Amino acid sequence: MSHNSFGHLLRFTTWGESHGPAIGAVVDGCPPGLGLSETDIQPWLDKRRPGTSRFTTQRQEPDQVRILSGVHEGLTTGTPISLMIENVDQRSKDYSEVGKAYRPGHADYAYDVKYGHRDPRGGGRSSARETASRVAAGAVARLVIPGVRIRACLVELGGIAIERSRFDDAEIDRNPFFCPDAETAAQWEIALDAARKAGSSLGAIVECTATGVPVGWGAPLYMKLDSQLASACMGINAVKGVEIGDGFGAARLRGEDNADCMRPGTDGPQFLANHSGGTAGGISTGQPIVVRMALKPTSSILTPVETITRDGEATEIVTKGRHDPCVGVRAAPVMEAMVALVLADARLMQRGQTGR
Amino acid sequence: MSHNSFGHLLRFTTWGESHGPAIGAVVDGCPPGLGLSETDIQPWLDKRRPGTSRFTTQRQEPDQVRILSGVHEGLTTGTPISLMIENVDQRSKDYSEVGKAYRPGHADYAYDVKYGHRDPRGGGRSSARETASRVAAGAVARLVIPGVRIRACLVELGGIAIERSRFDDAEIDRNPFFCPDAETAAQWEIALDAARKAGSSLGAIVECTATGVPVGWGAPLYMKLDSQLASACMGINAVKGVEIGDGFGAARLRGEDNADCMRPGTDGPQFLANHSGGTAGGISTGQPIVVRMALKPTSSILTPVETITRDGEATEIVTKGRHDPCVGVRAAPVMEAMVALVLADARLMQRGQTGR
Amino acid sequence: MSHNSFGHLLRFTTWGESHGPAIGAVVDGCPPGLGLSETDIQPWLDKRRPGTSRFTTQRQEPDQVRILSGVHEGLTTGTPISLMIENVDQRSKDYSEVGKAYRPGHADYAYDVKYGHRDPRGGGRSSARETASRVAAGAVARLVIPGVRIRACLVELGGIAIERSRFDDAEIDRNPFFCPDAETAAQWEIALDAARKAGSSLGAIVECTATGVPVGWGAPLYMKLDSQLASACMGINAVKGVEIGDGFGAARLRGEDNADCMRPGTDGPQFLANHSGGTAGGISTGQPIVVRMALKPTSSILTPVETITRDGEATEIVTKGRHDPCVGVRAAPVMEAMVALVLADARLMQRGQTGR
Amino acid sequence: MSHNSFGHLLRFTTWGESHGPAIGAVVDGCPPGLGLSETDIQPWLDKRRPGTSRFTTQRQEPDQVRILSGVHEGLTTGTPISLMIENVDQRSKDYSEVGKAYRPGHADYAYDVKYGHRDPRGGGRSSARETASRVAAGAVARLVIPGVRIRACLVELGGIAIERSRFDDAEIDRNPFFCPDAETAAQWEIALDAARKAGSSLGAIVECTATGVPVGWGAPLYMKLDSQLASACMGINAVKGVEIGDGFGAARLRGEDNADCMRPGTDGPQFLANHSGGTAGGISTGQPIVVRMALKPTSSILTPVETITRDGEATEIVTKGRHDPCVGVRAAPVMEAMVALVLADARLMQRGQTGR
Repeated sequence: MSHNSFGHLLRFTTWGESHGPAIGAVVDGCPPGLGLSETDIQPWLDKRRPGTSRFTTQRQEPDQVRILSGVHEGLTTGTPISLMIENVDQRSKDYSEVGKAYRPGHADYAYDVKYGHRDPRGGGRSSARETASRVAAGAVARLVIPGVRIRACLVELGGIAIERSRFDDAEIDRNPFFCPDAETAAQWEIALDAARKAGSSLGAIVECTATGVPVGWGAPLYMKLDSQLASACMGINAVKGVEIGDGFGAARLRGEDNADCMRPGTDGPQFLANHSGGTAGGISTGQPIVVRMALKPTSSILTPVETITRDGEATEIVTKGRHDPCVGVRAAPVMEAMVALVLADARLMQRGQTGR
Repeated sequence: MSHNSFGHLLRFTTWGESHGPAIGAVVDGCPPGLGLSETDIQPWLDKRRPGTSRFTTQRQEPDQVRILSGVHEGLTTGTPISLMIENVDQRSKDYSEVGKAYRPGHADYAYDVKYGHRDPRGGGRSSARETASRVAAGAVARLVIPGVRIRACLVELGGIAIERSRFDDAEIDRNPFFCPDAETAAQWEIALDAARKAGSSLGAIVECTATGVPVGWGAPLYMKLDSQLASACMGINAVKGVEIGDGFGAARLRGEDNADCMRPGTDGPQFLANHSGGTAGGISTGQPIVVRMALKPTSSILTPVETITRDGEATEIVTKGRHDPCVGVRAAPVMEAMVALVLADARLMQRGQTGR
Repeated sequence: MSHNSFGHLLRFTTWGESHGPAIGAVVDGCPPGLGLSETDIQPWLDKRRPGTSRFTTQRQEPDQVRILSGVHEGLTTGTPISLMIENVDQRSKDYSEVGKAYRPGHADYAYDVKYGHRDPRGGGRSSARETASRVAAGAVARLVIPGVRIRACLVELGGIAIERSRFDDAEIDRNPFFCPDAETAAQWEIALDAARKAGSSLGAIVECTATGVPVGWGAPLYMKLDSQLASACMGINAVKGVEIGDGFGAARLRGEDNADCMRPGTDGPQFLANHSGGTAGGISTGQPIVVRMALKPTSSILTPVETITRDGEATEIVTKGRHDPCVGVRAAPVMEAMVALVLADARLMQRGQTGR
Repeated sequence: MSHNSFGHLLRFTTWGESHGPAIGAVVDGCPPGLGLSETDIQPWLDKRRPGTSRFTTQRQEPDQVRILSGVHEGLTTGTPISLMIENVDQRSKDYSEVGKAYRPGHADYAYDVKYGHRDPRGGGRSSARETASRVAAGAVARLVIPGVRIRACLVELGGIAIERSRFDDAEIDRNPFFCPDAETAAQWEIALDAARKAGSSLGAIVECTATGVPVGWGAPLYMKLDSQLASACMGINAVKGVEIGDGFGAARLRGEDNADCMRPGTDGPQFLANHSGGTAGGISTGQPIVVRMALKPTSSILTPVETITRDGEATEIVTKGRHDPCVGVRAAPVMEAMVALVLADARLMQRGQTGR
């Protein structure tokens, strides 16, 4: 029941603060004999890395991962895999005022009351910097489920949604927004530039699809895939909503319109729809797993907002430092990692209980 | 890592199938010295009980709970509390065809492939009947957090949403829909009657508010309140979406509009808004916790839908038996129970780690 | 982290007090498709059942187990298996004084201070009666490891040890002591009769051997088989010592005398000794697993001993009621059950992580 | 259910191999506000450090610990504490033959079959080097239980036991054996020198006493202090036996002789004996906790022993490299650390459930 661990048979624990010397993850339960080196992890970290466009924080972190254990001669050994990423570009002085007043939308006040004492530099433990550890752990998880392809993209930013008919998987990596449509990406660029210049920020919706998941993963009743995915996504910084398949939209359908009808197929059943997003009773159905999550706009903004100091005095705060104008953008690789971890864990649990 | 357990310091495990002799829960970790008898649990079960109106299944289950352990002379002893509810009104013959063909939207196919063998009667383990155990366990959880008030209501049914300005807490218990507005309830009645007569079903959105939660509950990073609540709600039958506070709506706000500004108050800080739904960084802020969940329409409908048999042959299926035309209605007491369990667990964990 | 659960992928939770209406266990994670009915469990319970000879408590409990869930048409379904045993022959009046003064060697005082409130009748939750639940759960565990044979016997009682050369497996079930030597059993009978008549009690050492365990079960470093076995045995009532293989005796050997040398064998390696008791680095080696545990003499005796009342007054106590003069005797079936649970769990975990 | 984690509310996870770049531990759940710096940890590591006398391995490791997270301005923050110790003096060439043949008494064979692939250098993950991580984590645990004093010493080495009447706590730190009697230490020196020169090794028994533990820690039934202590100790390299209080000796006492009688005392009850080793029903009684563990002789010896190669061929093996002639010596600080971790965890759990 570690507060900072996630997963069961495949389980990772993260540690580290935004402005400490390093951050890292320990991945436990990885099967032995899988090829793993830093080069299997680095590309995923690079996708999430800050400072790559003007739409992300200008903090320059190389995010170079080191594998400290669990791998011998290029293969995993079944023992814990320790991953470490050094923090390089901390500028703690930017945060000198953060310790004095509570930033609305941030965890400052709650941490202060809960713990009495916290590391305020860069948000400390609550910083999104920690998600680099998740991405590194997720890269390991991908090795456990080689037949599964996991892809996240933004489907809405600042209230501007993509048109489903224009969805182009190939486009996702061609723009700084993980947007599956070039035209929408262009609109987002304008909107995000404007918000940034106005000292404001925007929210986003990220969608992740996992294909190649066989029938039978997920363990009812309290380890349903839906529950695990919801827990995984809702734990990502700034996420306030999660839905599987049609999600909230399903609440507006009639029973017969929401049915994922089946027909005999060439190899196994063929589904005529995927309203359920690839799960039934919390177990994968063999259809693509589809999850969406909503991220609030970045709380760190240059627009002054009303707040109080640690001493309870009224004040206004402007959050300087270097921040993403839309945290949703870099959340896409994080979401992929968390979905990979949930699925890899579910695969191992399924194998453990049923032998398949 | 029990598949059928939930929680950490306060933890419950459920067992039982829809048409087995009984269902039940074992609640572990309950603090000693709390007054507990069947009469503390029964009223909550009665709220969820089937057969109370024409808008719920006509299965007649008294849902009488028995406490088999963990209580002595009316007080909890700190040992496991075993709760049992006998199944009385099973009509397994209604389900004779269920074992032969897969009902779309149900877990039939996924369970069959996962386990190879299942109890198909009434959905077996995947039946919403199991949620009675959660409600019973939730009644125990409420004792652990005496200052917290937890209230769920439907805010949308069949696509018809309540008007926020008409929200009346007192109305919730006066109609069979847990609807906080009499006028909307009347509309829902018409819509649900129509759906029922058409052999169809409707979805719903349920909202739960917990007031009286102090600052500091919830354990970052992987036991954030948000994560635990999302996991708890997404594990309820038919739920496909969860949001905290403004949820998906927050993704459309600008940073300054989403800020929960603070001002000095008479006792502690005063918040000027609650977009975050009572959490920051996964920790409670002292504001009301607000969670919403979306339920798909009941999959068991009398409208024929296309499917396949266990042998892979094409067929059509009509799900007879006794079913709720909208599973969202009876999900409200279940949601309350799950929220109570999450909060009680978070309280004990907070006390364990910090002594407060 | 349930206090009342044991195991990981195969996990059981027990509930119930000595003088409550019933006791029981919920077994979670059992693989599907295994043949299971009450008749697979009852014989193991009968072995542990009280009242079968004058060397065990005279409480008459039929210990009839009921399966309430998780089995359909004679096969496990992969869902939780709920097992219940009703308490029939409680005589709570025998214990009217137990609530007033603390019995030395019993948990009375510690429970009272820890919980403030407890069920004192028959020891409540701390009664060895709870071990019936473990035996029932253990019967399920045996189904998970069909090739493994688990056998416990007493190797010492009241300081009288068996001679190893006279060890006869077939004798174990022919005497009321699970003694592998008829001659020693006769000596124990005399010693135990004398102790019983003197209002005293005796301790014992129980040894359990599991054959047929393949190489590779057990998960280093903190789920070593040794650790899991030690935890399982040390949790049995009255157990104060556990050893694997040569145990404490190994501390007196020289390195070369303690080496389990290997030689090529017809199918796999042949070991020339088994000092290690079937584990190396916490992992099974393919040799028999050998565990021993020491039980203190029954604390409930008719000889008066000095103690204090709940109010802190000096007093003497004589523990009436019906008690085993040597709790070690009936601990043998319990030890078997716990070893079965550890091994079944280890097997599923091994399969989950490595696929074998 | 991490294989490489230990504890519940206070939980640590270790990682690292003997000849990898570093080893480490992540301690999760530590209460906030405790003063912690490297200087609080280093003295405990120094006690366990190799190369300090001719009775331990000559590998020269400074064992300098670094705190990478969880501490800000000298105080713990309630977030995970990452501890890292770099490996400095690996000589992997010494182990070039280890990968080819299985060393009796080592985990080589079991790891190989379990995982198919392992890091054989210095024993890899199964090396006692990993216990440095436990000692570092244990130093953090001590801060959580400030009133508790934990002290381990050797009470037997190579079959030579101390005389209880000569036990002198102050002597423990004055000899290289953690021996509480100078005279016995002198005998051990002779015995161990002889064994070392003969290319052999000796076993030992280590005893740990924790004073200052209040009544009420430990959670029945499956988190009994006894179980947790047994699991913690049996997981230490080379340990094959554990006992609490009189342990195996209790099996030879009569009920009245084993009773820990009570009498009214000046502040709370006074116990007249401590046969139980400070626990009753798995809960602390307020008396000193007394645990003993038996370690087999070091398996790495220069005396040739019969074994097989990875290819199944017969061979003899002599284990070169640098080894402790008695692993029991350096196990004393490790045992202290594990006992500290169990007690700190039990304290937080007790506080969580009961508020005290």
